Amino acid sequence: MSTIPHPDFAAARFAQCPDARFQPAPADGVLPEGFFSTTNLPTYVRLGGVWRMPREPRMDCALVLDANGDLWTREGRRVRAGERVVVGHAEDGSQGVYVNMAYLTGGGEGEFKFMTSEVSREKPIDYAHMARLLVEERERGGYPVWVTGPALVHSRARTDMTWFIANGFVGALLAGNAVAVHDIEASMFGTTLGMSGSGEATSGGHGMHMRAINKVRAAGSIAKAVEAGVITNGIMHACVVHQVPFVLTGSIRDDGPLPDVVTDNLAAQDAMRRHAVKATMAVMIATALHAIATGNMLPAFVVEKDNSLRELPTICVDSSEFVVSKLKDRGTHQAFGVVTNAQDFMHILRLYVERELAARGTAPKQG
Amino acid sequence: MSTIPHPDFAAARFAQCPDARFQPAPADGVLPEGFFSTTNLPTYVRLGGVWRMPREPRMDCALVLDANGDLWTREGRRVRAGERVVVGHAEDGSQGVYVNMAYLTGGGEGEFKFMTSEVSREKPIDYAHMARLLVEERERGGYPVWVTGPALVHSRARTDMTWFIANGFVGALLAGNAVAVHDIEASMFGTTLGMSGSGEATSGGHGMHMRAINKVRAAGSIAKAVEAGVITNGIMHACVVHQVPFVLTGSIRDDGPLPDVVTDNLAAQDAMRRHAVKATMAVMIATALHAIATGNMLPAFVVEKDNSLRELPTICVDSSEFVVSKLKDRGTHQAFGVVTNAQDFMHILRLYVERELAARGTAPKQG
Amino acid sequence: MSTIPHPDFAAARFAQCPDARFQPAPADGVLPEGFFSTTNLPTYVRLGGVWRMPREPRMDCALVLDANGDLWTREGRRVRAGERVVVGHAEDGSQGVYVNMAYLTGGGEGEFKFMTSEVSREKPIDYAHMARLLVEERERGGYPVWVTGPALVHSRARTDMTWFIANGFVGALLAGNAVAVHDIEASMFGTTLGMSGSGEATSGGHGMHMRAINKVRAAGSIAKAVEAGVITNGIMHACVVHQVPFVLTGSIRDDGPLPDVVTDNLAAQDAMRRHAVKATMAVMIATALHAIATGNMLPAFVVEKDNSLRELPTICVDSSEFVVSKLKDRGTHQAFGVVTNAQDFMHILRLYVERELAARGTAPKQG
Amino acid sequence: MSTIPHPDFAAARFAQCPDARFQPAPADGVLPEGFFSTTNLPTYVRLGGVWRMPREPRMDCALVLDANGDLWTREGRRVRAGERVVVGHAEDGSQGVYVNMAYLTGGGEGEFKFMTSEVSREKPIDYAHMARLLVEERERGGYPVWVTGPALVHSRARTDMTWFIANGFVGALLAGNAVAVHDIEASMFGTTLGMSGSGEATSGGHGMHMRAINKVRAAGSIAKAVEAGVITNGIMHACVVHQVPFVLTGSIRDDGPLPDVVTDNLAAQDAMRRHAVKATMAVMIATALHAIATGNMLPAFVVEKDNSLRELPTICVDSSEFVVSKLKDRGTHQAFGVVTNAQDFMHILRLYVERELAARGTAPKQG
Repeated sequence: MSTIPHPDFAAARFAQCPDARFQPAPADGVLPEGFFSTTNLPTYVRLGGVWRMPREPRMDCALVLDANGDLWTREGRRVRAGERVVVGHAEDGSQGVYVNMAYLTGGGEGEFKFMTSEVSREKPIDYAHMARLLVEERERGGYPVWVTGPALVHSRARTDMTWFIANGFVGALLAGNAVAVHDIEASMFGTTLGMSGSGEATSGGHGMHMRAINKVRAAGSIAKAVEAGVITNGIMHACVVHQVPFVLTGSIRDDGPLPDVVTDNLAAQDAMRRHAVKATMAVMIATALHAIATGNMLPAFVVEKDNSLRELPTICVDSSEFVVSKLKDRGTHQAFGVVTNAQDFMHILRLYVERELAARGTAPKQG
Repeated sequence: MSTIPHPDFAAARFAQCPDARFQPAPADGVLPEGFFSTTNLPTYVRLGGVWRMPREPRMDCALVLDANGDLWTREGRRVRAGERVVVGHAEDGSQGVYVNMAYLTGGGEGEFKFMTSEVSREKPIDYAHMARLLVEERERGGYPVWVTGPALVHSRARTDMTWFIANGFVGALLAGNAVAVHDIEASMFGTTLGMSGSGEATSGGHGMHMRAINKVRAAGSIAKAVEAGVITNGIMHACVVHQVPFVLTGSIRDDGPLPDVVTDNLAAQDAMRRHAVKATMAVMIATALHAIATGNMLPAFVVEKDNSLRELPTICVDSSEFVVSKLKDRGTHQAFGVVTNAQDFMHILRLYVERELAARGTAPKQG
Repeated sequence: MSTIPHPDFAAARFAQCPDARFQPAPADGVLPEGFFSTTNLPTYVRLGGVWRMPREPRMDCALVLDANGDLWTREGRRVRAGERVVVGHAEDGSQGVYVNMAYLTGGGEGEFKFMTSEVSREKPIDYAHMARLLVEERERGGYPVWVTGPALVHSRARTDMTWFIANGFVGALLAGNAVAVHDIEASMFGTTLGMSGSGEATSGGHGMHMRAINKVRAAGSIAKAVEAGVITNGIMHACVVHQVPFVLTGSIRDDGPLPDVVTDNLAAQDAMRRHAVKATMAVMIATALHAIATGNMLPAFVVEKDNSLRELPTICVDSSEFVVSKLKDRGTHQAFGVVTNAQDFMHILRLYVERELAARGTAPKQG
Repeated sequence: MSTIPHPDFAAARFAQCPDARFQPAPADGVLPEGFFSTTNLPTYVRLGGVWRMPREPRMDCALVLDANGDLWTREGRRVRAGERVVVGHAEDGSQGVYVNMAYLTGGGEGEFKFMTSEVSREKPIDYAHMARLLVEERERGGYPVWVTGPALVHSRARTDMTWFIANGFVGALLAGNAVAVHDIEASMFGTTLGMSGSGEATSGGHGMHMRAINKVRAAGSIAKAVEAGVITNGIMHACVVHQVPFVLTGSIRDDGPLPDVVTDNLAAQDAMRRHAVKATMAVMIATALHAIATGNMLPAFVVEKDNSLRELPTICVDSSEFVVSKLKDRGTHQAFGVVTNAQDFMHILRLYVERELAARGTAPKQG
């Protein structure tokens, strides 16, 4: 049972504090401008030199002094015209109200705040900022490593990902067999796992990814399949055509796999790390396995040519808060979480990058 | 323990079935074109007139006949050049392979498929379709009811929502106190629950929504606060200015509430239903409470002027599959689920509506 | 725009239908016993031989005939004493009310129902049934394959998992490096990823798993570390001591790895499949990667010694509906989803298995 | 772009630091005992009096000095026998290795840790602690307020909740119409929303809750329905029989509602607050709306009779991290999150309370 000590009001810091000030409520259910808005923390109001705790404490209320001299915590709607209401915003005693945060912060000052969680779907997403980072990386010749899961392909973000590759925003692509399989199935048959572009399961669809894999195995490699005209568009096609390096790492879930997949995990880690050590930015989309694997390999910082350090921008996009929290729980504290759908993320990010390029008068390399 | 009967291969429907056909694998780990791709269901292969089950069944494999006449389910990568592999796509016996789905479908034919779940973040989102629906509703003078939760405001979709209201895409807005409070806080102070537009908790922020509420209570109503210039932009401002009706219903979570809020739930239901009976479309965004409440009130269909019926288009947007499943579990089976972030949804939807308007040569009513 | 045809009331099946029956409401806001409870589907009421649609349709209401002969869909609370309310439960017209489900079921009969989603946290979990399955598998010498993720270990279900292994309920354990690493860290240091048993991050904790791995690498294998007394309890210890086979498959996320881990994914799939082909039941807990990998390998059925087939019981436990839906979307349609915390699942399942054993007079092999 | 300054190694605090110590790796892929385990933060190793940054930084590695005098961050598996590896756990320079956390903590010391997120399904749940709190509250005559959502009833935790009420662990029950409706439907018909106890949708089920509501409306109140033998078991029955006060607050989602429901939200808030001001503990289960509403009303502390303060124990149970994070984001920072299924939570909590009572030699009031 954790007890909360009362503050020592004899301490010097409270010596200068004045009594709280009051103003009358201008109408029933309306508070005076500048009213003190309560928290749920232990709160003390100075009255006649004495610090008193208001009764029935709760947050989002006013403090009201009644005719008997009792001090109440009261919802604004219940305050009647003329009742005396504490005014002032300060919570440090300097206006006669002290809110005890100190027991929470271990003596530090702190402040009662809403919306402090680090990762939440309720937080705004700053696409303009991310777009700027990507454009700057391209301008300075950085090495942004993209790490993606197969949801990216299922949900039709494939065209947007292809655009980023074709236009020089991808230093290296780290992914698994499934990303390439679905992407190549889409190129060959227009489906992903047999699902059409509008989301319906198709007849005979469950074998499509196996047929796609088999064709690439017959060709010998993804690059050879591109050369042979067996793969004609999409993410892997763009990597081959634009010479963007990719590492496809295997997992026990893989069908096939494609000939390019590194099936041994230690060899795969070594292959990933060759890119991780060069990374100047990381963008992780819709994958827990690959995001955390890459997070494990990335330093939290970039060493610049002049030997100065800066934080390694690390963006992690997922449908739920869980992956980002997990990534942070595994030490990748610098990860910035974006809780959304991969398809929508890619679409808006591309839009903002195009705007940023237009604003700078820089054309994309390729439409 | 549910048993699965073997099919009755003496039945007429199997009389015409031929033996399965085989082709040799062209290379190690490569299957012949047109190979049969397995499922995990009971599978029977006709060989010399006899239906046999392959050994070691699993999905995503080939069927291989070995030198001893044994039939195996084998991963493509393990097949050696020259081994005999079953070919043919049909699963109904017509090419010598029968997959027993019948025990799952209660005798119906059915087909083994991937990606059949109704609501999933892995499904593509058809924004073009939704945009078309909205534009058509506006053209025919429909009455699209929008139902929104406060996440819409927190995450900066506020501008986009305002645009939809200003441009005639909203028949009525059904929401709670919080949507209006956060929207008005944003108009007055630039914050929502004290969180800045870039997602940081601000100093003194926890009282901001209380101050916003108090100012509107002082003005008497949202409309009067708009008139008085106390509210100058945003969702509620647009409703007032463009005379789009809104119903703000109360809940036990409400601070304030704002003067316009219907605090009695039965009166609130009656107020909502006056719009629900006119609805020709429903768009529900980032709210479980209001979405399910509205779902309860909506018929699954629209009665047209000529007395014909059509399905009532019902779009439900949420960060997780859960709300949509819950809505369906409460009978709103026609709901089409979009699993994404409200901010991104609104942004892309607006983009597609603008494109649809441009394609039709229709200018938005207002930029 | 999908239109919904009106039923053909000239059809034979409607010929015998009677007019709907009415009873007066016994009091304000109280409906007569046996009242018809509405759905949101197109509904037709037979009155004087004519099928009419009630006005303002919605679900969860009564049907009321007013003094003007108009038929309304009305909330029970709004019905006044004496008003005439339709009674009867039948929705097929046989009591004068017809609900059109046919357009949804493609002509089949069907019925409007709530709570039809396949996987939901709102569904009851039948532990008694699962316990009975496990005990029966043990009695008949079945081969239940358990597939687990590391959350099992973090959240202190470790003791319960150990109990299942020690008592003969586990045919084989399929897991990744992390399960074994966290389990062995717990045996050596009492922490998992440096988190104490009560959930706090400990000082120096981030290196604990690395030290645990290093000790096992020094010993040469998990079995040798058990022999040498370096590992003294837990899941891996129980597997070694009770000779329960395990397969530890690698992934790109692995630290170490432990010497027993199969690092090549194709070799790992082959090792897993040697157990999958023998499986008579599958229990998958808190893992997407391993659950889907195993699901891919499992047939949906078990071939009994007498050549009859039965469904392969497949239990999939996860904190969210998503993993089970994904597993189903990848073809493992027989999976039964349990949406809960792994720690709680294991604890209650063990409790029910102990009860089942007690009821059968069978002692566990080991306390 | 946030830069990270190098530490000022001229500062006094670094004056005493020794050079780092090295030990040879005892075998290939095996590190010396006491090896330094890396983080992903900027790291400096003192060698010959100079602080140097190792190359290719990442977490979970060893630091190796090669023959050329270069210092590398290397995975343990890649270290060869005899290579010189840094030893020592300290990260503050006192053993020759300094990890720069200061830039993250604003100058404070801090430490790199895993598993620091506040709410996660991966954290262990301390049922023994919660059970002890509940028993102690009962012993000292506390007033634990329980706040529950309808999932509790759907998922068969109903019996356990009834047990807690009957045995004196519930000061007051705060819930919505739905909890009571489903509970009463279960008492009358054995279903909840027409779903059977084993989770199947039943025929005619969609009207069951409406019939349950109608019977209570006919009786006049829940208490009268209990008296009349219309409700014979369950949560509401236990509240009536054991005189545990309850507040049923309305929402716009309500069917009916039951006669006891406070339909006006302001009256409902006042009714809830009459219990909140007396609360000495709060248990919130499977409800976002009611949990946050109650959280808004509760102080973060309890004022004891001797005027001392202690934290108000606040337990919040939900299937996902989101509700707890949201509760904290709305200021209820003291909430302790349990991420699990309500049914399992109730079952295990009861088990632990029974054990705690047995350990204290206290019989429950009622079996």
